[in-house]
Amino acid sequence: MSFRVGILGATGAVGQTFVELLDGHPLFEITALAASERSAGKPYREAANWIGGIEMPENVGDMIVQACETNLKCDFVFSGLDAGVAGEIEGAFARAGYPVISNARNYRMEPDVPLLIPEVNPGHSALIDRQDWGGSGGFIVTNPNCSTVGLVMALKPLHDAFGIDAVHVVTMQALSGAGYPGVPSLDSLANVVPHIGGEEAKMAAETGKLLGALTDDGIEMADATISAQCNRVPVLDGHMECVSVRLKKPATAEEVARVMDSFEGPLAGMGLPTAPSQPVRVFTDERFPQPRRHARAAGGMQVSVGKVQDCPVLGVKFVVLSHNTIRGAAGGAILNAELLNAQGRLVHRTEAVVAA
Amino acid sequence: MSFRVGILGATGAVGQTFVELLDGHPLFEITALAASERSAGKPYREAANWIGGIEMPENVGDMIVQACETNLKCDFVFSGLDAGVAGEIEGAFARAGYPVISNARNYRMEPDVPLLIPEVNPGHSALIDRQDWGGSGGFIVTNPNCSTVGLVMALKPLHDAFGIDAVHVVTMQALSGAGYPGVPSLDSLANVVPHIGGEEAKMAAETGKLLGALTDDGIEMADATISAQCNRVPVLDGHMECVSVRLKKPATAEEVARVMDSFEGPLAGMGLPTAPSQPVRVFTDERFPQPRRHARAAGGMQVSVGKVQDCPVLGVKFVVLSHNTIRGAAGGAILNAELLNAQGRLVHRTEAVVAA
Amino acid sequence: MSFRVGILGATGAVGQTFVELLDGHPLFEITALAASERSAGKPYREAANWIGGIEMPENVGDMIVQACETNLKCDFVFSGLDAGVAGEIEGAFARAGYPVISNARNYRMEPDVPLLIPEVNPGHSALIDRQDWGGSGGFIVTNPNCSTVGLVMALKPLHDAFGIDAVHVVTMQALSGAGYPGVPSLDSLANVVPHIGGEEAKMAAETGKLLGALTDDGIEMADATISAQCNRVPVLDGHMECVSVRLKKPATAEEVARVMDSFEGPLAGMGLPTAPSQPVRVFTDERFPQPRRHARAAGGMQVSVGKVQDCPVLGVKFVVLSHNTIRGAAGGAILNAELLNAQGRLVHRTEAVVAA
Amino acid sequence: MSFRVGILGATGAVGQTFVELLDGHPLFEITALAASERSAGKPYREAANWIGGIEMPENVGDMIVQACETNLKCDFVFSGLDAGVAGEIEGAFARAGYPVISNARNYRMEPDVPLLIPEVNPGHSALIDRQDWGGSGGFIVTNPNCSTVGLVMALKPLHDAFGIDAVHVVTMQALSGAGYPGVPSLDSLANVVPHIGGEEAKMAAETGKLLGALTDDGIEMADATISAQCNRVPVLDGHMECVSVRLKKPATAEEVARVMDSFEGPLAGMGLPTAPSQPVRVFTDERFPQPRRHARAAGGMQVSVGKVQDCPVLGVKFVVLSHNTIRGAAGGAILNAELLNAQGRLVHRTEAVVAA
Repeated sequence: MSFRVGILGATGAVGQTFVELLDGHPLFEITALAASERSAGKPYREAANWIGGIEMPENVGDMIVQACETNLKCDFVFSGLDAGVAGEIEGAFARAGYPVISNARNYRMEPDVPLLIPEVNPGHSALIDRQDWGGSGGFIVTNPNCSTVGLVMALKPLHDAFGIDAVHVVTMQALSGAGYPGVPSLDSLANVVPHIGGEEAKMAAETGKLLGALTDDGIEMADATISAQCNRVPVLDGHMECVSVRLKKPATAEEVARVMDSFEGPLAGMGLPTAPSQPVRVFTDERFPQPRRHARAAGGMQVSVGKVQDCPVLGVKFVVLSHNTIRGAAGGAILNAELLNAQGRLVHRTEAVVAA
Repeated sequence: MSFRVGILGATGAVGQTFVELLDGHPLFEITALAASERSAGKPYREAANWIGGIEMPENVGDMIVQACETNLKCDFVFSGLDAGVAGEIEGAFARAGYPVISNARNYRMEPDVPLLIPEVNPGHSALIDRQDWGGSGGFIVTNPNCSTVGLVMALKPLHDAFGIDAVHVVTMQALSGAGYPGVPSLDSLANVVPHIGGEEAKMAAETGKLLGALTDDGIEMADATISAQCNRVPVLDGHMECVSVRLKKPATAEEVARVMDSFEGPLAGMGLPTAPSQPVRVFTDERFPQPRRHARAAGGMQVSVGKVQDCPVLGVKFVVLSHNTIRGAAGGAILNAELLNAQGRLVHRTEAVVAA
Repeated sequence: MSFRVGILGATGAVGQTFVELLDGHPLFEITALAASERSAGKPYREAANWIGGIEMPENVGDMIVQACETNLKCDFVFSGLDAGVAGEIEGAFARAGYPVISNARNYRMEPDVPLLIPEVNPGHSALIDRQDWGGSGGFIVTNPNCSTVGLVMALKPLHDAFGIDAVHVVTMQALSGAGYPGVPSLDSLANVVPHIGGEEAKMAAETGKLLGALTDDGIEMADATISAQCNRVPVLDGHMECVSVRLKKPATAEEVARVMDSFEGPLAGMGLPTAPSQPVRVFTDERFPQPRRHARAAGGMQVSVGKVQDCPVLGVKFVVLSHNTIRGAAGGAILNAELLNAQGRLVHRTEAVVAA
Repeated sequence: MSFRVGILGATGAVGQTFVELLDGHPLFEITALAASERSAGKPYREAANWIGGIEMPENVGDMIVQACETNLKCDFVFSGLDAGVAGEIEGAFARAGYPVISNARNYRMEPDVPLLIPEVNPGHSALIDRQDWGGSGGFIVTNPNCSTVGLVMALKPLHDAFGIDAVHVVTMQALSGAGYPGVPSLDSLANVVPHIGGEEAKMAAETGKLLGALTDDGIEMADATISAQCNRVPVLDGHMECVSVRLKKPATAEEVARVMDSFEGPLAGMGLPTAPSQPVRVFTDERFPQPRRHARAAGGMQVSVGKVQDCPVLGVKFVVLSHNTIRGAAGGAILNAELLNAQGRLVHRTEAVVAA
């Protein structure tokens, strides 16, 4: 029996990716699309300026977009809301008893809110038990920023095997990461912009939390030092990152590559529909990975690594690629929901409501 | 009285940039264009598949391309030859008495060959005196790889002021750096390629030589540790580089920015025609520099720096932009020639020949 | 029982698209991959420089590439060969008894060779009966040039309903149409090239044959006058074409749009796996179609039309988009094979060989 | 003695191009920069988000932007205002006695307002005498839309030599034509948008007026039938147009090419600083013109033509390229001002004011 799903911010770029990825999902069925007042009341086909390269799924086109009010008929909501409104609306939904699985940044660094990558820190979902939304049964779970997720998935096996002392990362981020209308074409065509507002700080903070340890007092941040420099490049989808790492226990490039490529992670054998069978793939062809060729690997959920080599300054370095709107946004949130379901944290709210 | 100039490899991408930049030059006049046998005998207009965004200067179109043989009527030659043939041909010209001012990589790391950036190490031209081409009077001088020059011009003032212990650089390099036909469009449009053959090693080695000290035994390499990761991005002209530096004597980001922005260099007051009045410009607007907007600053000879900030891992970091086919190739070689002239190392060969 | 399929030119751009599209095909299974001597003997994974945005299907990676010799174990071959070698090799395969379903241009305009678009002229396959390859049972069938197919699919319903007197078409063609390495990136990034060798003549000739009538003497060319101007634009996949038509029987833009959008074509109800349920889709949103959004409609097999409006000069005009490497090459050839199978023209050659 | 020039809309994309092109102009000196209330009072350096590839001229950076009020200290104004406000503001300046040389579309089709291309219809400036702005001495002159100007400059010599019966044009227009922020990068990168609002109607109407005849009753529109289809392509600068023409008196492609290439136009010998010595250049290399290579020919003021060939449908066809922000906007307006000066229609307003 599948869960009924609502999407907050359904008409935006992230919301559209939720719609695209949930088409045909074995567990989750979209039953409510919500967006701003401007869109409410219109069929989704008209309300959403569909920007994807794949067509809008047939069945959602005629659904009427609703306002983001807490009367949506669904078991939980995905949130693709803009940060400007996500704080208030997501809080209202949690207070009304909805699980909120959010891509917005607002609650990511809250001590009691899990910042989750299922392959990295699935146990952090225990923070849910520390949340208090007036006894509603609702909660909020978040996924990291699109530039953080690829980095941390590559770092996790190294963290486990060798310990991470310091990370230096330079990103080359795709245009779709800025949403729509996003970057003006005169700033992007044949150009690089060496700045993405707030991104460098987010990468540092979120990495510390994701690699942190769950304790009785919440998350203890990992003690790795992180330095990020973020750039926007003329790529449609897929964030590339040049990562150099100083390990606590030195390792050769070969060892590092082997540990990443063989990383199974805690999801192995769980059968989560959206989980890639291999979380991190390491290329030996030095021309790879490339955004146009590999961003969509395993449906956009696999992280690609290449050019693993010694770094004379920090020890080891490599290139990471991950799909920013799938693994880095909607797909990551969907995998979070699949994890929560496997952990027994999602309920069919009709029953829940009846019980209440 | 201007010098007569020959261009070796005149029909290639670098050769064309020499032709473009020498149009109207106050000191140097093109009197010979030389290229492969395939082009020899044809008017330049037909032999060269002109790829620039500015039209071929009128006067060179009708010049007949010659073979790369040592009978060119000129006082010295610029070489834009491919590395596959540059070693032999440049050696032959030096042996025949020509000063060879080369952009090719072949002789760059030879102990007796100056690898020159006039603003950085003008005195290294003294290595010329150690060269022996059979008493011909000829010599070879080189400029660095297109990805090295921007980096080293930004590093030089820091090297002088604080000492450089380690450098970590990630490049985002323009397509024109690969020449023509160069990168296939299916590899470049909306894509990033995380590999440029040989580039990472070149950046490390050349930086060490450029920042090295001239001693009685030749150049003593600088002891800075260099780590480079090179990427090709869909930009036409202008290499962007994210640079992080560990200084020997720590300095704040503000101090680092001030030292770079106020760097005058040894050319101040010399009036070299191609030298930018300000070698390194530091932007405070965090969106800058950008290749499309700033690569052509000061005719493509100025290096642009931005986003100077603390690096929690290495100390300080910033972004560098330099024009790869001008400052990083033909323009750099022309400035080298202007320096050599100012140093009295160029002669009008007719007299020289008469004298001989 | 599925057919065993060989692919000639399997390592090239078109060959790779055959491999990609045949992955999981319900009727056709790849049993032989053939390419040039240089590739023969290598695993496909090594021989092919895989350029697609989707990964090479697992099962073909280890297949050993063979030479293009007529001992391939398969029931028929798809040919993605370059025109330089296709004439000879395809003829040899036909002579050896293989049906050859070719994307190459060599035989397209031969009087006895069908130039096929299943939705347009399925009956032209009867030309096969006029071919004589020494009684081998082999034959050759071709699909049109990538720029012709979208045009003709849009014209066919108009031809049937109103008659076509003259066609004026301006193309904006994707880079993948030039194969790999194809267009140098310095010619394509932020640029338009107003010339594609031979393309304009091909569009005119092929359109005449495709819309022609099958008579006892072969194909009688359609009498429409065609004028084409072909341009290369910086798009990855999907040829856009601005088409203006002078109809024999005038019609309004609305009538023209309706006739195209409701075109069912002769494949309706046949259940060919690769056939789109709607061959031509007409958009009313004047911003559409666009290559990035719509080229992959119906798996890249649907032709998209938009901006249908009156043309003060020729009568009616519109924009057509079709996927050049799918509908315009490998996908079109696969649909041809599906049609031939439905027409009973493909046999399982083991039996055939036994019978012989 | 040079004229003092004000720029209305100085901070916008067109305004910035005025500033760039007027740097060092021999006749016109910027003395006033005016923009919206939001910019007024700020130094131009801060008020303008400078988007050009060449740096902001030094001297204007510190000028204080003023409001668009009719107290600007200048002899005439260039207007780069948006159409939303240009009607009112330009009218106010004309009424206050300023000559207004506008790039906005608001007054272009007014019967008494000259729509001017100096090489095409310089005599249309006589319409100024029909304008009545309350005896102020002010007037308004306009230049055509960026997509019209290249077309009409190529058509003019054909109109004179053979007469033009019908024109079919398909445009491939650069992103800079949409201003800033303009086209979102997700709509432009690797994409084509087949629609530009209002552009097709503008091209038809403006062409009729530009090629029209000046009579005692104003302009008699040319009787050519025009059909335009406009597309946005991922090019930075330079509109490409595929033009097919039905001439009243048939001519071969060779004759058409010769007439265009040898077109001198009415400016020959007048010495206008911005006028290209050859207004229309015809390429014989079928790969040319291309936006990246040729848009900036003659400082962006020359129109490039190529691929002149027979059109089986309309008679003759060719490709036209013109720089959209220079020839098609600010540069065209500056040339208009130079023409008006040569015609004695500009005065030094200090004297004018004193006289009044």
